[in-house]
Amino acid sequence: MLIEQIHEPADLKKLSIKELKQLCEELRAEIINVVSEHGGHLASNLGVVELTVAMHYVFDAPEDKLVMDVGHQSYAHKLLTGRYEAFHTLRQKGGISGFPQMDESEYDAFTAGHASTAISAALGMARTRDIMRGDYDVVALVGDGALTGGMCYEALNDAGQSNTRMIVLLNDNDMSIAQNVGALSRYLTRMRRSKGYIAVKHGVRDRLEKHPRFGAPVYRWLSKTRNILRSLFVDDKFFSALGFSYIGPVDGHDLRHLIRVLRQARAYDKPQLIHVVTQKGRGYQPAEDHPVTFHGVAPFYLESGFSKREGITPSGNVVASQLADMADNDIRICAITAAMPLGTGVDIFQKAHPDRCFDVGIAEEHAVTMAAGMASQGMKPYVAIYSTFLQRAYDQILVDVCRNELAVTFLIDRAGLVGEDGETHQGVFDLSFLRSIPGLVIAAPRDVRDLKKLVELSQDYNGPMAIRYPKVCEDMGPGIQSQQRFDVGQWELLSDGSDVMIFAVGRMVPLAMQAAIELMGKGISAGVVDARFVAPMDMDLLRRKATGVRLAVTVEENVLAGGFGEGVLEALASMDIDVPVLTLGVPDRFIAQATVAQQTAECALDALSIARRIRGRLSSMEEASQ
Amino acid sequence: MLIEQIHEPADLKKLSIKELKQLCEELRAEIINVVSEHGGHLASNLGVVELTVAMHYVFDAPEDKLVMDVGHQSYAHKLLTGRYEAFHTLRQKGGISGFPQMDESEYDAFTAGHASTAISAALGMARTRDIMRGDYDVVALVGDGALTGGMCYEALNDAGQSNTRMIVLLNDNDMSIAQNVGALSRYLTRMRRSKGYIAVKHGVRDRLEKHPRFGAPVYRWLSKTRNILRSLFVDDKFFSALGFSYIGPVDGHDLRHLIRVLRQARAYDKPQLIHVVTQKGRGYQPAEDHPVTFHGVAPFYLESGFSKREGITPSGNVVASQLADMADNDIRICAITAAMPLGTGVDIFQKAHPDRCFDVGIAEEHAVTMAAGMASQGMKPYVAIYSTFLQRAYDQILVDVCRNELAVTFLIDRAGLVGEDGETHQGVFDLSFLRSIPGLVIAAPRDVRDLKKLVELSQDYNGPMAIRYPKVCEDMGPGIQSQQRFDVGQWELLSDGSDVMIFAVGRMVPLAMQAAIELMGKGISAGVVDARFVAPMDMDLLRRKATGVRLAVTVEENVLAGGFGEGVLEALASMDIDVPVLTLGVPDRFIAQATVAQQTAECALDALSIARRIRGRLSSMEEASQ
Repeated sequence: MLIEQIHEPADLKKLSIKELKQLCEELRAEIINVVSEHGGHLASNLGVVELTVAMHYVFDAPEDKLVMDVGHQSYAHKLLTGRYEAFHTLRQKGGISGFPQMDESEYDAFTAGHASTAISAALGMARTRDIMRGDYDVVALVGDGALTGGMCYEALNDAGQSNTRMIVLLNDNDMSIAQNVGALSRYLTRMRRSKGYIAVKHGVRDRLEKHPRFGAPVYRWLSKTRNILRSLFVDDKFFSALGFSYIGPVDGHDLRHLIRVLRQARAYDKPQLIHVVTQKGRGYQPAEDHPVTFHGVAPFYLESGFSKREGITPSGNVVASQLADMADNDIRICAITAAMPLGTGVDIFQKAHPDRCFDVGIAEEHAVTMAAGMASQGMKPYVAIYSTFLQRAYDQILVDVCRNELAVTFLIDRAGLVGEDGETHQGVFDLSFLRSIPGLVIAAPRDVRDLKKLVELSQDYNGPMAIRYPKVCEDMGPGIQSQQRFDVGQWELLSDGSDVMIFAVGRMVPLAMQAAIELMGKGISAGVVDARFVAPMDMDLLRRKATGVRLAVTVEENVLAGGFGEGVLEALASMDIDVPVLTLGVPDRFIAQATVAQQTAECALDALSIARRIRGRLSSMEEASQ
Repeated sequence: MLIEQIHEPADLKKLSIKELKQLCEELRAEIINVVSEHGGHLASNLGVVELTVAMHYVFDAPEDKLVMDVGHQSYAHKLLTGRYEAFHTLRQKGGISGFPQMDESEYDAFTAGHASTAISAALGMARTRDIMRGDYDVVALVGDGALTGGMCYEALNDAGQSNTRMIVLLNDNDMSIAQNVGALSRYLTRMRRSKGYIAVKHGVRDRLEKHPRFGAPVYRWLSKTRNILRSLFVDDKFFSALGFSYIGPVDGHDLRHLIRVLRQARAYDKPQLIHVVTQKGRGYQPAEDHPVTFHGVAPFYLESGFSKREGITPSGNVVASQLADMADNDIRICAITAAMPLGTGVDIFQKAHPDRCFDVGIAEEHAVTMAAGMASQGMKPYVAIYSTFLQRAYDQILVDVCRNELAVTFLIDRAGLVGEDGETHQGVFDLSFLRSIPGLVIAAPRDVRDLKKLVELSQDYNGPMAIRYPKVCEDMGPGIQSQQRFDVGQWELLSDGSDVMIFAVGRMVPLAMQAAIELMGKGISAGVVDARFVAPMDMDLLRRKATGVRLAVTVEENVLAGGFGEGVLEALASMDIDVPVLTLGVPDRFIAQATVAQQTAECALDALSIARRIRGRLSSMEEASQ
């Protein structure tokens, strides 16, 4: 196998084009194999195999900086940069990350996770090179989906003016995670289909190259003359207005051609954008047929492509179905997604109410302010965004929605610990950044029944509200006490206790109840309150239940700084209630990839750890008082 | 005076063009007059007088929605919509806001304050209209400066695909607050200068209109035929790629022509962008000559344009001078501003080190990630952004800078209460959103001496750091105890006390010291600790000084939720220190415009209020214990 001989990119350069093509097939097989075992991002990674090989063939990493946007396209890169042997540990605890990470390899020029950052980072590197009088090349690999994010435009606008030497490789597969959206996407499609299309270019090349005598030399000469090379390509409007030289479209699976174009580009000293057309899922039939399904996948059967996981209903689907029903009789209700109709469940709403469903692209900022505009005219918009990506819209939530007290509801999916996506995707900051915003209601359901009740409650609530939930909400069953109805700000006492009172949020509630049972076995009477509203708090229940116990405990799936626990401390201090408080939450560091269960244990937020830490605190209190 | 007769926009429509022109002069005089008295945004508002009159003449607000970006261009609009008589209260406590505010007038379709939001909000309104089967027009007025913000592009990209009826009025004065930057700005300049320039159009029109018999009818007929009207204008590349019909450039001071173009545009039913060229500062010679200086001004002498305020050195200038000196011997140091070189003081650095200073446009997200890219290759970037605008880059600070432990320093200007700009500009959230980020050092100097020491300290600190300070840092003088040097995380005991210990941050430190003196007069011994690092905290000094007193007090110029006080509560709880704590900070609501002193008093954060609240708490504690 050739792939076993590639320990660093330099090894690539010894191979012939024919061997490189074979290597591409081996890379594909390895990616499909490992992802089918462990899950991961498949379709996007299969699309850039030739492009990645060409990049490493032409450029000299790590001296040259190859910056990959998002990182859904970094697997082939990882396999070519010394990580073939460890690749089977992909996305597992202690293993290879699913994203480029600076601390994993010197070949990962920049850590990615959220979209649309690569051009900014690359421009920073190019400017550093200019200041430090370095000589390396800087290449940003960006998907057409990421190009819907405003940051890309901010960076292109700045880079285009800078005149510095850098290359943006636009990996255009006509897809974001789902089908790409936006006017620019249509523009790219027109470029792909315009009369100067690739096939024609190939025709020119092929005919020239086939000429026995002067074909090849003439083509080479043509290629060296930049203007003539460009004349072989389509005339661009958009990127040239932004100060970039546009080259394309280029067939992203034609290795020989890619290498030629990249070499050409390397010799140029101004900002340039190369439009590379690829096919998402290339080389694995199920992924070619269903590129959206195979964007990010759980483990699957190699031959059929069928998932190995049993059907569990994601929270987003529950919410979207309910919302679609509510919208039948309420014309105000609409749904907004930032390029993730499938992940958030919004596709379900879309099928029922296509005219009231908006996919705005990877544009969280715009999504939130557009929702504010809608709410200002009487709509009731629901904005479904993952917790980690909502970080992008903090300012818009604060200034455009909450300053104006507009009835926008945020459906915050993937809240808390997220598992295999790791550090850049943890949803453990939302309680903190949202709590700082005046007038925002923040809710977290303990299970799927409560989730539905919260969505129901939101319909008539006339102000900004956030509901945060994990990918899957368990059903705790009707067995435990459950309020039929509750108002905004109302908590629920699930079980009483005389020694300890645990105030828990969201997914931590069932774990707190298990911990209480565990404590009971040790002779400690612990009660549990479901603090389903992090803001506003149920001051009355808090006062009553935090008084008279030896220890109050808060448990949340969020960093402690600025989170629920600190809010409880502040509330108790403001009421002058003197009770020792133990705050449990995610520690003040970035939590690496692992399963959600492993991460929960690592943060000592599993039921046994919660019980153990409570007992520990009680013991040290007893020692201190002796 | 015509202006006195305009109580609502409908009154405008009775006037002749000649009268409208007179009205424009009256509007200008009123704006200049009031701003010279109270300060405010002058040059930008003078530039859009004719455009605003034309908008209200052609459209029917409030049924039609006129959405103004940022709001630096809303004064004429306010004068025409029933606020002439109250206009002299501009930017004062209880008076007319300097920005459009939905709760101030039904004519203010959307509240603005931060740039680049108008197209998003307008698209939300247009989509609402389509769903609700309404019939109103939606117009977004956006400056060319705001167009450097990525949100605008996200919104254009989405709107261009939507095919909905909406108009974007691009107010192009070739300026952001300072000279505009970016490739697109150059593109707009080329458009203005291209062969189809306005004058030529006027020529066509004028010649036609001068023809005695068929001139006027033919021009009218031509105007009705959209394609022919368009053919009178320049051919655009950029906006048409985004799905917008482009019309322009149009002379923004030619009232008759503006009205004609807007009427034409109103009849069209797809997204269109009208490129209007205006002159910033138009009609007031000092502002025409110095549009940057006269963007936002303190009260000034009408005839000379000289400021009435005495020279006080803004914190940003102090920092930038120091940084420029440091950079003489440290090639790693560079400065980045997001379109505010003057406001942040970065222009001083720019003069000294132009090759290491970057104005990236109103693009805070890109600014931060570009800085991360630079730091990843060994630069030491300083990113100077106002506290309120840094909210835009929360995600980038977290994921791109702090996740990678990169040595980017954030110079956070206008932290705390900001005075006349009011609700949308308060810098009272940064301690909260920054505290949630693992590994970020957060510092706040108590005075200008400490500010300099912090900047000095940052040079050798090899990680992410934020320094937040108000517009002006006072000099507390060498009289009070002052550490010559301190390390990251080190607080300072300024005065000891046996009853109360006050832990204060930044500008609150001198106020806390005054409060301590006040308390001493009442027989209460209060000490003061300068908690200059909000993260990490000085756990040792906190433990020692919070123990043994009757009451610990925290004082910060930040919302309580997630702020410094909650951090102290959490730290005390984690150390199991049982002391009553009184947390003082900005209350959980948006603080409206007033002077900084008024706002400080309103938040009960002035020295007397601090002392009074401490005494109140001590009294209630005594009562409770009796």
